[in-house]
Amino acid sequence: MTNTDDTVQFSLVQLDDYGPWTVTPEPRPEPSLQALQARIYADLADFVGSRDGYVFPGRYDNMIAVTNQITPAEHQRFQELVRHRYPVTASIGVGTGTTPIDALGAATEALQSTGSAQDAARSERLATARDADPNGPLTVAHFDVVDATGRYTDAEHAFDAERRIRRAFVELSDRMREHGAVTSFVGGDNAIAVTPDLDDATYDDVLEAVRDAVGVEIRVGVGRGETAHSAGQGAKHALETGRNTGDWVVTAAPASTDD
Amino acid sequence: MTNTDDTVQFSLVQLDDYGPWTVTPEPRPEPSLQALQARIYADLADFVGSRDGYVFPGRYDNMIAVTNQITPAEHQRFQELVRHRYPVTASIGVGTGTTPIDALGAATEALQSTGSAQDAARSERLATARDADPNGPLTVAHFDVVDATGRYTDAEHAFDAERRIRRAFVELSDRMREHGAVTSFVGGDNAIAVTPDLDDATYDDVLEAVRDAVGVEIRVGVGRGETAHSAGQGAKHALETGRNTGDWVVTAAPASTDD
Amino acid sequence: MTNTDDTVQFSLVQLDDYGPWTVTPEPRPEPSLQALQARIYADLADFVGSRDGYVFPGRYDNMIAVTNQITPAEHQRFQELVRHRYPVTASIGVGTGTTPIDALGAATEALQSTGSAQDAARSERLATARDADPNGPLTVAHFDVVDATGRYTDAEHAFDAERRIRRAFVELSDRMREHGAVTSFVGGDNAIAVTPDLDDATYDDVLEAVRDAVGVEIRVGVGRGETAHSAGQGAKHALETGRNTGDWVVTAAPASTDD
Amino acid sequence: MTNTDDTVQFSLVQLDDYGPWTVTPEPRPEPSLQALQARIYADLADFVGSRDGYVFPGRYDNMIAVTNQITPAEHQRFQELVRHRYPVTASIGVGTGTTPIDALGAATEALQSTGSAQDAARSERLATARDADPNGPLTVAHFDVVDATGRYTDAEHAFDAERRIRRAFVELSDRMREHGAVTSFVGGDNAIAVTPDLDDATYDDVLEAVRDAVGVEIRVGVGRGETAHSAGQGAKHALETGRNTGDWVVTAAPASTDD
Repeated sequence: MTNTDDTVQFSLVQLDDYGPWTVTPEPRPEPSLQALQARIYADLADFVGSRDGYVFPGRYDNMIAVTNQITPAEHQRFQELVRHRYPVTASIGVGTGTTPIDALGAATEALQSTGSAQDAARSERLATARDADPNGPLTVAHFDVVDATGRYTDAEHAFDAERRIRRAFVELSDRMREHGAVTSFVGGDNAIAVTPDLDDATYDDVLEAVRDAVGVEIRVGVGRGETAHSAGQGAKHALETGRNTGDWVVTAAPASTDD
Repeated sequence: MTNTDDTVQFSLVQLDDYGPWTVTPEPRPEPSLQALQARIYADLADFVGSRDGYVFPGRYDNMIAVTNQITPAEHQRFQELVRHRYPVTASIGVGTGTTPIDALGAATEALQSTGSAQDAARSERLATARDADPNGPLTVAHFDVVDATGRYTDAEHAFDAERRIRRAFVELSDRMREHGAVTSFVGGDNAIAVTPDLDDATYDDVLEAVRDAVGVEIRVGVGRGETAHSAGQGAKHALETGRNTGDWVVTAAPASTDD
Repeated sequence: MTNTDDTVQFSLVQLDDYGPWTVTPEPRPEPSLQALQARIYADLADFVGSRDGYVFPGRYDNMIAVTNQITPAEHQRFQELVRHRYPVTASIGVGTGTTPIDALGAATEALQSTGSAQDAARSERLATARDADPNGPLTVAHFDVVDATGRYTDAEHAFDAERRIRRAFVELSDRMREHGAVTSFVGGDNAIAVTPDLDDATYDDVLEAVRDAVGVEIRVGVGRGETAHSAGQGAKHALETGRNTGDWVVTAAPASTDD
Repeated sequence: MTNTDDTVQFSLVQLDDYGPWTVTPEPRPEPSLQALQARIYADLADFVGSRDGYVFPGRYDNMIAVTNQITPAEHQRFQELVRHRYPVTASIGVGTGTTPIDALGAATEALQSTGSAQDAARSERLATARDADPNGPLTVAHFDVVDATGRYTDAEHAFDAERRIRRAFVELSDRMREHGAVTSFVGGDNAIAVTPDLDDATYDDVLEAVRDAVGVEIRVGVGRGETAHSAGQGAKHALETGRNTGDWVVTAAPASTDD
């Protein structure tokens, strides 16, 4: 049960006027865009990760970060990093809420209030919507497809394995959203969600719904901690336990100190 | 109509024993994994892009490249690049076929024949399944959600916009697969497919099916050329035409020379 | 005049067992080593720069950072970044002193106390030698060759321009060391020193000695601030003033707030 | 003895209008510039290295590459890579000659003919000065300070070790230039030169002169091959032999095939 005092902070990092930039003066080669997008995301991962947060790629021109330990002002440092290294700039919305969905929603609205993503006159804006300071523990759920290597990676056409896993995580994202969680595929056969404090039965229901919808078996490890980092490490350890015991839902004991 | 002599080459780049590496000796912090995966993918994009190919991230531990202009032996150079810069190594399968699905399927089987993705004794394998040398033009289709900025990015919760667009492209990937195409979300509101030479009516059917399934309107630009690069640039220009004219399917005149 | 309470902190980041790694099992290709070294240095620059410090490449397997705002414990985050992204690891010595030379000397001794740079059993050590906490303002001097573009870059053989400028900065480094400063070439025709609080006459003498020794005219801008970042920005602005006025030594007014 | 038919190709990669860019609209933070410079250099190392060439950082806004296997037209791909990923662009001069110094001199003049490094109107120029196609083997000499770890890295103040080694390689560069070679410090205690085909006695003289001038003992391994890569690998192996035998000059047998 979520303590209503617990407040999580999400940041939405949006590249300014990116769509138009990709075709001006002429369409830019796709591998160049792929490399650019991936490296900006990697830099965000380093910036946020070294401050105990978590990152998801989003749509690459819109990236998502869990930023409880990062003040809005400090986000300017990431904007500065982008400005001096890349041919694009970034605007950021920072929002808090009692659930991840509420926090990311606040961040989204804050960012949208600064202007359109494709407004050429809008650049490097930083907007916040924080009703409260980030406070209290976070919960991270780490999902893993059961025996993906044996069933899919080593056995199927690579594209079919990818479609299957991505569809499973699209279903998963929709179910978890109903519970206030923000979920992302993170590569391989894994997805990670930042969630409210949900009970195991909720995860059972979600996993069963995904299994019924797409025929993919998923297990989950859940961790809770003061930072996304510690909660996430707890989730990873719980997942390892589940891999060994065969349990599909394993919730770690609360982390006493950061990993 | 596809000239049955046309042969496309796909490469499947798989990180060796990656799942186990991410949790040995202890689970590694997720932002570190995100950064690592993104940077290896960016390096692949540079390697392949500078040789006129195209790349898709796949599942990051399994990346996809269109490699008509890159000999199997030259793929070793990318394996070498990974070996000396990263804490992981990569095995690669290279395959050809008359359709992208067939080519990627051949690449998958070639790679699978070298051993499991999680076989600790299998590393840096390079396997090929080439019935014929790559030959003849490629077709690239570049898909774009109609007015994504106005309808979704500037208007919706960022996570809902992402879920909507990703679900649309999962549907698109399934439909296009039926026609022998390999499709990938490439960021923003865009997806790219490498396809056989399909007629406009096929694209009309696919786009209608996606619209009916998920309520998202997509347009497409199609290009054809001797390399993924030139075909892709043709597709991007065709898409720009479509953005201006309002047409949902625009096929570019064949490229006479590489962009 | 240096306030003897002012304490600066330097960190020496040393790649563990790097020499042997570069030739095991066989010598690794030089461009791979160049890329690896440059990217680790770039990551250090991002890590330290986003925490208001400064970095110098040193010898790449031994990198130098000015780290007043970074606790010894926080340095572990950089070690973790290296561990999960690269095929090498890093040990770090952190030291303080009333002059940059003393601080870097303390950092060196702390690191050396953990074992040899080529001791295969020594990895990821973190050692500190801090007699006092970092405190008080820093001074940064930014050196620039007068009219390098006109005299050298646009006029001479590129290798001769490079030799000339590097020799000038080797001489500069020796002279500035006599005054307790740590100096590094930073690219182009620029060098940066972290120095005690020296008077303008000292800079005049140093520049004259370099001019006499190698025939290269250098100007300098000097800044002072609570962080390497603010001191360095002050130095850059002072240098711009000197470029406009023709003065060879310009000391900025003390920075009141960080840039 | 150099076969006067042997022709080597060098490329000079110069960032356009870089000095002014670093201070416009305001001076950019130094760690940002360090990261940018290092990553562009790393990308050049990957681009050239995967095409069997060698790279040296030069002054970072002027980088040097040995490019026998890379046509002038192909250099445009690197310019394109920079254009789409970075906030700066690059102009390139490509030159050939019978000695490295002549080749780099030709490249320099070709580049200078396109305009000043700080001409805001000059961007992304590509100029060549090729009297002959690159042809015939290259020679690479790999220099290594004897027992640097024991004498300097583990024993001295890090800044003093760095000054000593950099001064030694400044002296080495000057001596080797007299013989037509282009030399660069490459990190650690190593320098690499691309040279004409010199006899062992010449290396003996050069090493003795450096020893007399700066008191640093250096050994060298020399390799010869069809590409900078194979010549360089030969040099590295020769150096390993020298480390084991105690010889200060070891010339490898000619490479029969590329490494």
